[in-house]
Amino acid sequence: MAVQVLGVLGNGILDPATPVVRADDAGLTRGDGCFEGCRVRTDTAGHTRVDKLDRHVARMARSCAALDMPFDEAGWRTLVEQACRAWTVAGEAALKLVQTRGPADGGPTGLLTVSPLPPDYPRQRREGLRVVSLARGLSADAFAEAPWLLGGVKTLSYAVNMAAQREAERRGADEAIFVAADGAVLEAPTGSVVWALDGGLHTTPTGDTGILAGTTQQLLFERAADVGWATFETLATVEDLHAAAVVWVISSVRGPVDVIELDGKARSRKPVIDAEVRALCDF
Amino acid sequence: MAVQVLGVLGNGILDPATPVVRADDAGLTRGDGCFEGCRVRTDTAGHTRVDKLDRHVARMARSCAALDMPFDEAGWRTLVEQACRAWTVAGEAALKLVQTRGPADGGPTGLLTVSPLPPDYPRQRREGLRVVSLARGLSADAFAEAPWLLGGVKTLSYAVNMAAQREAERRGADEAIFVAADGAVLEAPTGSVVWALDGGLHTTPTGDTGILAGTTQQLLFERAADVGWATFETLATVEDLHAAAVVWVISSVRGPVDVIELDGKARSRKPVIDAEVRALCDF
Repeated sequence: MAVQVLGVLGNGILDPATPVVRADDAGLTRGDGCFEGCRVRTDTAGHTRVDKLDRHVARMARSCAALDMPFDEAGWRTLVEQACRAWTVAGEAALKLVQTRGPADGGPTGLLTVSPLPPDYPRQRREGLRVVSLARGLSADAFAEAPWLLGGVKTLSYAVNMAAQREAERRGADEAIFVAADGAVLEAPTGSVVWALDGGLHTTPTGDTGILAGTTQQLLFERAADVGWATFETLATVEDLHAAAVVWVISSVRGPVDVIELDGKARSRKPVIDAEVRALCDF
Repeated sequence: MAVQVLGVLGNGILDPATPVVRADDAGLTRGDGCFEGCRVRTDTAGHTRVDKLDRHVARMARSCAALDMPFDEAGWRTLVEQACRAWTVAGEAALKLVQTRGPADGGPTGLLTVSPLPPDYPRQRREGLRVVSLARGLSADAFAEAPWLLGGVKTLSYAVNMAAQREAERRGADEAIFVAADGAVLEAPTGSVVWALDGGLHTTPTGDTGILAGTTQQLLFERAADVGWATFETLATVEDLHAAAVVWVISSVRGPVDVIELDGKARSRKPVIDAEVRALCDF
């Protein structure tokens, strides 16, 4: 998982082992900043491209705006191009873009890394995910008229998300799904939840729920609609998920992975639908 | 606000401008870590000591345990001693201790900084605080039996806390107070809320509310009880705060500061009680 390519906005590509963040950077001391995680694919000739780059750049611009930070789109795109030229290992890798509010006496910090895929992703994609539902403590409309709660903003403040993943592992699962105080399914700590039911694809609405707009979920829904699926934004309960034909946790780097166990209850896999959904997401 | 003294656990005191954190440190990318903010006081001979160091060390040990991270108490205490020897400017300053989960292929990162007081603290202490109440979106018992929500843990994931402070400033105030979905007063983004009513001192209970145990609030309540105050842990509404004799926002570096305006409603100051509370907190 060690960083293979490191870029710093304004400084280009650096030795990946270089410490680049100061101790008083608000991204570190306050989790005050935002990020994007993208899949990059490199062909056998060593040419690298970023999946859904425009969607990630657009979401990062929205995150920066919600955090009252400037966003240098041209600078970021140049840095991404430099990183793609620097990364030539055929296959998949993870590109991360991080922008922080910066140190007390300076402007924002922009960092980019390219790292290998997490080692458990191939197995999870192949075998599916064991998932537990965990309370998020917020109601499904907590974010209405409360922009300071940063709903929909992909902030660096993911300590609860990481703790939920550790709790899932402690319970023998791979992944968590957050549930609102009123029982509504929200999202996974680092992904969207999508389910197939009665010939339609469903996901949780963004907005008042505060969940993130998933770039891969959105791509899936657009392409699925083009090939005849009905798509819905639905507030569902965990019971509704148990009743669904397939449940996926979808993220940009791991892709869509079907849930094979939910709160200890085994789910039968549906290889045909699953393969179609994965293919629509380019996985 | 620039860092004047920089220490790194395992490396001692370094040039304060040195970048010390790698781009893949989980403290940066996930807000996955914890911190303490302490007041240091330096006498005219240049001797520096940390207020309530044992309480801060104890809370940081609890935060690390809740985050499944080791805590090297002896190492931290040595680093704090080195920082105190390196800082000789008479007066007050802010000491921050930060521990992160570290980079993907390494152990935790420990950082210490000494910085001057934020420039608006002297005025705020003198003039009091204009405060707005802001919804936190969580119920007052959201953290019961949900340790993954990290209630009571002083994590680095403070993006919402910082956004709430920006929202307060946008509304012409100095500070915010978070209110639970059911109307209960919780805490300020970086401090405890304490109020005086009918000869007693009140604060919000920790535990199921998820609020942080304030080191200065706890010191105050112990000393206040010694001199005859009754002290209470109370779930109160903003209306209850309006009815209180004095409301304070209390943090370790700024100390207790009385609220002079709450949600646009002016409050009369009570200099005698306020001075007693400040003195009990060593301010």
